[in-house]
Amino acid sequence: MVKGAQGIRHWGIELDGFTAGPSNSIADVAGVTVGHTTLAAGAIQTGVTAIRPHQGNLFRDKVPAACCVINGFGKSIGLVQLQELGVLETPILLTNTFSVPAAAEALLDLALSENPDIGVSTGTVNPVVCECNDGYLNDIRGRHITKKHAAEALNACSQRVEQGAVGAGRGMSCFGLKGGVGTSSRQIDVEGHTHTIGGLVLTNFGRLESLSFAGVSVHDLMATSEGTAEERGSVIVIAASDLPCDSRQLQRLARRASVGLARTGSYFGHGSGDICLAFSTGQTIPHKPEHLTYQRQALHEDALDLAFRAFGTMVEEAVLNSLICSDTVTGRDGHTRYSISQWKSEIIGRFGAHGDRPSL
Amino acid sequence: MVKGAQGIRHWGIELDGFTAGPSNSIADVAGVTVGHTTLAAGAIQTGVTAIRPHQGNLFRDKVPAACCVINGFGKSIGLVQLQELGVLETPILLTNTFSVPAAAEALLDLALSENPDIGVSTGTVNPVVCECNDGYLNDIRGRHITKKHAAEALNACSQRVEQGAVGAGRGMSCFGLKGGVGTSSRQIDVEGHTHTIGGLVLTNFGRLESLSFAGVSVHDLMATSEGTAEERGSVIVIAASDLPCDSRQLQRLARRASVGLARTGSYFGHGSGDICLAFSTGQTIPHKPEHLTYQRQALHEDALDLAFRAFGTMVEEAVLNSLICSDTVTGRDGHTRYSISQWKSEIIGRFGAHGDRPSL
Amino acid sequence: MVKGAQGIRHWGIELDGFTAGPSNSIADVAGVTVGHTTLAAGAIQTGVTAIRPHQGNLFRDKVPAACCVINGFGKSIGLVQLQELGVLETPILLTNTFSVPAAAEALLDLALSENPDIGVSTGTVNPVVCECNDGYLNDIRGRHITKKHAAEALNACSQRVEQGAVGAGRGMSCFGLKGGVGTSSRQIDVEGHTHTIGGLVLTNFGRLESLSFAGVSVHDLMATSEGTAEERGSVIVIAASDLPCDSRQLQRLARRASVGLARTGSYFGHGSGDICLAFSTGQTIPHKPEHLTYQRQALHEDALDLAFRAFGTMVEEAVLNSLICSDTVTGRDGHTRYSISQWKSEIIGRFGAHGDRPSL
Amino acid sequence: MVKGAQGIRHWGIELDGFTAGPSNSIADVAGVTVGHTTLAAGAIQTGVTAIRPHQGNLFRDKVPAACCVINGFGKSIGLVQLQELGVLETPILLTNTFSVPAAAEALLDLALSENPDIGVSTGTVNPVVCECNDGYLNDIRGRHITKKHAAEALNACSQRVEQGAVGAGRGMSCFGLKGGVGTSSRQIDVEGHTHTIGGLVLTNFGRLESLSFAGVSVHDLMATSEGTAEERGSVIVIAASDLPCDSRQLQRLARRASVGLARTGSYFGHGSGDICLAFSTGQTIPHKPEHLTYQRQALHEDALDLAFRAFGTMVEEAVLNSLICSDTVTGRDGHTRYSISQWKSEIIGRFGAHGDRPSL
Repeated sequence: MVKGAQGIRHWGIELDGFTAGPSNSIADVAGVTVGHTTLAAGAIQTGVTAIRPHQGNLFRDKVPAACCVINGFGKSIGLVQLQELGVLETPILLTNTFSVPAAAEALLDLALSENPDIGVSTGTVNPVVCECNDGYLNDIRGRHITKKHAAEALNACSQRVEQGAVGAGRGMSCFGLKGGVGTSSRQIDVEGHTHTIGGLVLTNFGRLESLSFAGVSVHDLMATSEGTAEERGSVIVIAASDLPCDSRQLQRLARRASVGLARTGSYFGHGSGDICLAFSTGQTIPHKPEHLTYQRQALHEDALDLAFRAFGTMVEEAVLNSLICSDTVTGRDGHTRYSISQWKSEIIGRFGAHGDRPSL
Repeated sequence: MVKGAQGIRHWGIELDGFTAGPSNSIADVAGVTVGHTTLAAGAIQTGVTAIRPHQGNLFRDKVPAACCVINGFGKSIGLVQLQELGVLETPILLTNTFSVPAAAEALLDLALSENPDIGVSTGTVNPVVCECNDGYLNDIRGRHITKKHAAEALNACSQRVEQGAVGAGRGMSCFGLKGGVGTSSRQIDVEGHTHTIGGLVLTNFGRLESLSFAGVSVHDLMATSEGTAEERGSVIVIAASDLPCDSRQLQRLARRASVGLARTGSYFGHGSGDICLAFSTGQTIPHKPEHLTYQRQALHEDALDLAFRAFGTMVEEAVLNSLICSDTVTGRDGHTRYSISQWKSEIIGRFGAHGDRPSL
Repeated sequence: MVKGAQGIRHWGIELDGFTAGPSNSIADVAGVTVGHTTLAAGAIQTGVTAIRPHQGNLFRDKVPAACCVINGFGKSIGLVQLQELGVLETPILLTNTFSVPAAAEALLDLALSENPDIGVSTGTVNPVVCECNDGYLNDIRGRHITKKHAAEALNACSQRVEQGAVGAGRGMSCFGLKGGVGTSSRQIDVEGHTHTIGGLVLTNFGRLESLSFAGVSVHDLMATSEGTAEERGSVIVIAASDLPCDSRQLQRLARRASVGLARTGSYFGHGSGDICLAFSTGQTIPHKPEHLTYQRQALHEDALDLAFRAFGTMVEEAVLNSLICSDTVTGRDGHTRYSISQWKSEIIGRFGAHGDRPSL
Repeated sequence: MVKGAQGIRHWGIELDGFTAGPSNSIADVAGVTVGHTTLAAGAIQTGVTAIRPHQGNLFRDKVPAACCVINGFGKSIGLVQLQELGVLETPILLTNTFSVPAAAEALLDLALSENPDIGVSTGTVNPVVCECNDGYLNDIRGRHITKKHAAEALNACSQRVEQGAVGAGRGMSCFGLKGGVGTSSRQIDVEGHTHTIGGLVLTNFGRLESLSFAGVSVHDLMATSEGTAEERGSVIVIAASDLPCDSRQLQRLARRASVGLARTGSYFGHGSGDICLAFSTGQTIPHKPEHLTYQRQALHEDALDLAFRAFGTMVEEAVLNSLICSDTVTGRDGHTRYSISQWKSEIIGRFGAHGDRPSL
């Protein structure tokens, strides 16, 4: 059974008045797929998660993209060129901090094998990898992720998005509890056409005392939970949409990831690498175009307001999903992060008539 | 009576575990003063608010400063140089969108009169004015603010910070209700020394349905309130601290204004000019120094995490204060914004044992 | 006679292998016009220059735009929103530092009179004014520019672009000599279609010793010139093109203004506010569109390389034109800036067969 | 013999009136060392260059740092965190585009071995690697650089800075000629104290027709040189200084790298990843400080103007040194880049009395 089925909607909680896509995942954006490689053995609790914007050769058919560095205490690769040129030309990989180079190697392998002209008769390629530090549960110094693991995640991509303590999420901690991978989606109407915004988060941030669970404080329930005082973190938000946004507009969207994160209790701590990367599948940009001037689909700025609004609570939901879909994990030195799902009934009990969230 | 005495703490609501300063206002940061000029007559509902970082000649003794443009749909003046040089060299003025030039003239008047060398034997001066659009209540096209009004606000500066529908806040709307000026402060301990962070907000953003009042949804109470559907906005956050931050650190602090705003229900709508400007009173930087190299006080980056945490809920509190301290105002074309304070008892009734906010 | 006819091409100097447009001015970009108001009387040596991207209502039909702040020691207004939304919705005004508010008032007057809905049923408008400090020649403290002068410059706009010590250029100093307004243009071929890039500069930067005149050092010729030691400055570069660039691409173009400036001898001194603002006339973006999604013309990134190359030497030429088209001006306190044109024959004598410039 | 002895000063060319440091290299900044690993065999023409800001444990004693992305068509790692926190905590490695991950692994090895607490009881570490594409001469697809090669460069660091076709410079092309590594330095006086600014460049940019060799056009001399039409590139500039700059000030310095590059003929082509990274050795910032507030050395902004001026021509000189110190190299598929030094006498012949460069 797909863990995606276990999101907060299955606890009866909805954060806003928007309709989610059919799978309430980033894969509701047509063409987007996700794959995981998970390592879970003793002190090794880590993994890789791959997101593919479409199923073709991304170097030949790039997608508009942008990113927002909310707090730059992070060790990603690939964001400089992505910001300059406004396109994504490899899949995105997420992994632990010290495995960024290994993951980048896997993206190079893929791009070089698919494109024999790279480095010979055309330019180079820009691999994109983001990370969080899973060192509390995982022996991160061991650098157990190899490029083979990353390649497996790329190969495993499908429309079925597994959530929780899987892939890059395996060793992550969030609000002193078990974090991991979460996803959600929203549908919005633009002049009679339904468009989809999807998100996937890798959650590794937050103090337990700060957690706002759909607007409700729950930290007192978990008084015995381990390691609640610390705040070492990071969170990566991947946003996808079929709206025909250009890179500047995607950058504006990416900046709104802060809304959903702040609503769950993030204050963008000093040590947290908080980054959102957004791409549009609305149209591709060819590496070598037939013509240098051409017609493209465009979105008027006025259409963004609704997208911004939908995005905020979607990110919030994806974070909450990452929590409740994660099982308890014990890793290096016996460190344990508990699943919030064990307090499910107590948490649900706190939602009353007046506890309903504002609809954003 | 100072309206500052009427903030949410007087409703019995505290958002976090931090201690506020004695006046729970930006003036708790030593040296900072605030003044208002308010125009309130029929269709003219507008004003100017002045913030002075210290009482001396700011051009001669500049303060470290930075800003964060959360959403740049705004018409400020002065931010480009402030970002480049990392200093503030005039007081800050807040006013309505079309009165920015008039306010800038008042700052030029002040700087030129205090400094006969400007434009003759030394360089020029960089006036800083931020704005929100009060056009729903105010005849903004009339540009009723003159440089004389702005000069009056500068002259009126004192440690007593009035909140609500005063100064630049006179014509502002927030969450479909009456917004305006709000303030709050926090004390934090750094190795046994108490430091203060203060904030002042000019609130003009948000949809009623999105309002999260200290974590509680209240929009159903105000079902008959006028004009709740629209979202035209902006919010300005002024942050002050006696922490010896440099400009880069203040920029990091300013970026966290998004936390408090998002927690109240902002999603940084497309049309909202959301800007935070932060300055430090920890030390001044002379226009012409005695020596080009010198010793300055510095703050280690590790001390910022607590400051970031305190700042988030302080901004949230300042926004809520701007709401509850604002009286109902009727302005141009009979447009009315209601004070949220008329629903005080119903709102307070919604806070129960489990409705307590997470402490961030 | 139009001073544009007196550019360096009339000295027999060409900087590259590109073809200039018919008038070798920014007005070669179809639709662009320029107007000046000049005040020249004793200590008052200043003015305003207006650039209109097209002849319609710019608020209703905006143009894609971007800017690059090379060095932010400047007091412009309007750049924050221009960067966020990527459009220009008023004409651009250039003036002296302390006249920015007056110029902004003129732009507000124009926009409000043309658009009765602004501030009533639609949002506000973002006036754009850039400046340099003409305080060496001009009584800048006197703030002699009124909004009436700025309105006159807007009304004076035509395709005939006058260069030299006119408009905002009246009081400017460049390389210790008389600077002012300069312009130039380039034609480039994109798949058989001719496109134009035009530029206008307001020059107020540089030390005489650093001046590289088309690659040749000439400062020894001017050993008796006044005030050569100082470097207080700024330069504004306005770039226009009919290439269908989006805002991100225009930002990339704007960043290349540094090339032309550095080639003349700028090192972007600490006190110099060096800003480039670029817009495209290739297509307009309606304030209220018929449809929120639509087809627009786009330019593939590969087409930019040639545009970047052409732009560098075009800016260089515009700077040199601003010098040689400026007559000697004496202003406040008897300060004088000499026209470089009085050394014309000595300078031309330095260009030999091997002195030819690289073609960039 | 050290190739540093063969810079343009040994051709009798000086670009400005500044004094260079004793070795005219980045190592004139006390504590800075440089090391190379060079692979030169048939189609494998590549390498790694290491720059160490000081000889201690850089993770424990970080240096203030900043970067400027002039054109972001590049695949560096580590710049996001460097911009956020304003410090460098590993040595800098330069290499070819596809060897960034291998180089990053070597930096991780070094940091983890020196600091057993990383990833266990303290946070992670941010490796910094910059790159250019040496694919014209080198079999870049082969990814021949291993982390062992990178470690060797780190171990080889010394104050003797070799220039030319060595280290990361082995396979680079510049202006259609052989590029590589170049270095230079400048001494400036700040109130009686001598401070040093040093630079090291990795040059891989430019069209031959655009080359301005100390202000003189020389491309006609090399009419038979191979591959002059293309422009694929990148350039990395590393700036070091003992001035007590903070990160914001270093960012301002880094932005001036464009001056020196533009003067040699760069127009920051679309496909060129042009990045400058600057650090200060003036003082270190401890990973775990004794006290969170402390006294640090500071530099008044007014002192920067001279530093900016010195930096421009220093970068220009470093680029020219990279050219004339590089021997001709033949690499993959018989591709050859010729050393400009073979035209030494013709080039020198072009410098006459009036050909002297302006002094900037």
